[in-house]
Amino acid sequence: MTSPPAPTAPPTLRWIGEGPNGTLELLDQTLLPGEVVALACRTDDDVFAAIRRLSVRGAPAIGVSAAYGLVLGVRDALAAGGSRADFDAALHASAEKLAASRPTAVNLFWALARCRRVLSLEPDLAPQDAAERLLAEARTIEEEDRAMCAAIGRNGADLLPDFPEPIDGPGGELGLLTHCNAGGLATAGDGTALSVLFEAHRRATAAGKRVRVYADETRPLLQGARLTAWELTRRGVPTTVLCDSAAASLLATGRVHAVVTGADRVAANGDAANKIGTFPLAVMAQRFGVPFYIAAPTSTFDRDLPRGADIPIEQRDADEVLNYGALRTAADGAEAYNPAFDVTPADLIAALITERGVIESPTADAVAEHLKTA
Amino acid sequence: MTSPPAPTAPPTLRWIGEGPNGTLELLDQTLLPGEVVALACRTDDDVFAAIRRLSVRGAPAIGVSAAYGLVLGVRDALAAGGSRADFDAALHASAEKLAASRPTAVNLFWALARCRRVLSLEPDLAPQDAAERLLAEARTIEEEDRAMCAAIGRNGADLLPDFPEPIDGPGGELGLLTHCNAGGLATAGDGTALSVLFEAHRRATAAGKRVRVYADETRPLLQGARLTAWELTRRGVPTTVLCDSAAASLLATGRVHAVVTGADRVAANGDAANKIGTFPLAVMAQRFGVPFYIAAPTSTFDRDLPRGADIPIEQRDADEVLNYGALRTAADGAEAYNPAFDVTPADLIAALITERGVIESPTADAVAEHLKTA
Repeated sequence: MTSPPAPTAPPTLRWIGEGPNGTLELLDQTLLPGEVVALACRTDDDVFAAIRRLSVRGAPAIGVSAAYGLVLGVRDALAAGGSRADFDAALHASAEKLAASRPTAVNLFWALARCRRVLSLEPDLAPQDAAERLLAEARTIEEEDRAMCAAIGRNGADLLPDFPEPIDGPGGELGLLTHCNAGGLATAGDGTALSVLFEAHRRATAAGKRVRVYADETRPLLQGARLTAWELTRRGVPTTVLCDSAAASLLATGRVHAVVTGADRVAANGDAANKIGTFPLAVMAQRFGVPFYIAAPTSTFDRDLPRGADIPIEQRDADEVLNYGALRTAADGAEAYNPAFDVTPADLIAALITERGVIESPTADAVAEHLKTA
Repeated sequence: MTSPPAPTAPPTLRWIGEGPNGTLELLDQTLLPGEVVALACRTDDDVFAAIRRLSVRGAPAIGVSAAYGLVLGVRDALAAGGSRADFDAALHASAEKLAASRPTAVNLFWALARCRRVLSLEPDLAPQDAAERLLAEARTIEEEDRAMCAAIGRNGADLLPDFPEPIDGPGGELGLLTHCNAGGLATAGDGTALSVLFEAHRRATAAGKRVRVYADETRPLLQGARLTAWELTRRGVPTTVLCDSAAASLLATGRVHAVVTGADRVAANGDAANKIGTFPLAVMAQRFGVPFYIAAPTSTFDRDLPRGADIPIEQRDADEVLNYGALRTAADGAEAYNPAFDVTPADLIAALITERGVIESPTADAVAEHLKTA
């Protein structure tokens, strides 16, 4: 498969087949934008590997993928015709395996726990019916994810400046800066941070006004240059890519009116873990009086973690930093420091944007209050 | 030539030949660390091209190269046997050409102006003697550059923490962070910022203590990963490479005790232009109470520029950001923002380190006072 997906619906993931005996198809994001290739996952090991090597990435997409991964994980037990206890044992083993694929992605744990809870509430279902129930839950998570993306887009766009015409300041455009990829590729829908940017672009265009999205390239894996710019340009959003270290200088020019990123995990006090480089962006935004927003579904919030300092930070492979594609660039003998995430303290976040609304100037109380709303 | 240079004296540049009819040999830094290849410059056009494409880079090395470039630039006029006026016209044309190779490198203008001034003071020299005089001046600039590097190393190392044993905090090592390459490759000597780090390593090693240098990879051209790590590891300095955007998270760990970078241009008030990404590093260092130092020779200071905002910032080729080596990574249609430098305001700089000493908490008055010293 090399033809590009339809512009409005990148098949980041989809379940192929009617029943639980289907296949999870993932768009292999490691090959974008050069190649658009679908990856068929037939076992939970396939899903584990795809999450691990970032073929599928982004907290919401990982959660949905893991839910479908569980359906694949119980298939052998189902085929063997064992008891419900055998089925539950397979489900447990599969969930443990999938949970280890990305230690920071709280949606992963959330989706796995949700699927297991649903089945634990129906202990009398026969294995075949339990598998059907598992698939139905995965489909529901996927559908909720699409609706979540749309709601985040609306809630976030409501927060952005009111598109004066002409835009004051350099460029005459509303400038929006983002980091990494919190787009349709990171979710089953339009994305989180990118859903806000897409919605802002839609509204501005309808009003005859101009928007430009600045996309940090996002080293080491270049998700911004490779994925975010791909999603934006194919939907007609003017896009400028920059090195992560140039964002400070761009903010200093006055061309950026808001920064919007996603999050992999939000602590109970509003501190947010996101792709490495998000934290310094928030510090620079504060310095230049530009509001810094995090767009993330409530499933990303972890009430059990009081503060960002409690979020475990995954250290990734040194070769991501020491090599440049296939080429070794750093001298032999050099070591690497390669954390996947950093933590942005809540006091740098102008608002957390969720599918339920916004939490302005987030605090532990405000977060707790927000999570109570339906 | 593919054998590595001797560890202590990388031939960043050297004049081959006794008189002005020689060749400027440059180590082609675009190929490091994979290949160690010397580039022979036989005309000022060769030197212009080498500076332009960063085969030679770093403000001091550019200044020395440009001085030798002038010697190459007058060669045709000399061979044609014209008058001193013809010689001076060729010198003028060559200086104008070379000055356009890197608009931000003040050492370039400084070296060119110095060579021209020397000749203007001796209007009666015959062309051949004038060429000899020009070569002698270039050699003097090179020698002064080596001495400058050594002095900066000593002055900077004096500023660093006193190497307690064991070092307090994580790692038990003195952690020093640098950005881009302000090393032997950027000068005729041991470098500016790197000279400080080499000297700190020498002193600590002599005292049986440990130092680690953290080198930002420095996108888009990866001078940190390619050049700084190469210089450090071949001289036995423990080196850790990181993505530029990970420096904030590293500073947050407490493992960094000082940040030391070079500068391409320092304004009269102490604001400093250096490789893109330096400014956010200074902001983050301030946030974590880590001193941020700029090591740069007084030739880098531009008294005619009152403030950093007056420093012209070169915008470089979009392909440096949109491509990954030879591979196109960003989506078609994406634009790029690719400034070569940013400006660090003086109030973020704990001290400017020069060959003459240090300017702590730099201000316009302190800078003016320092530049008066011999």
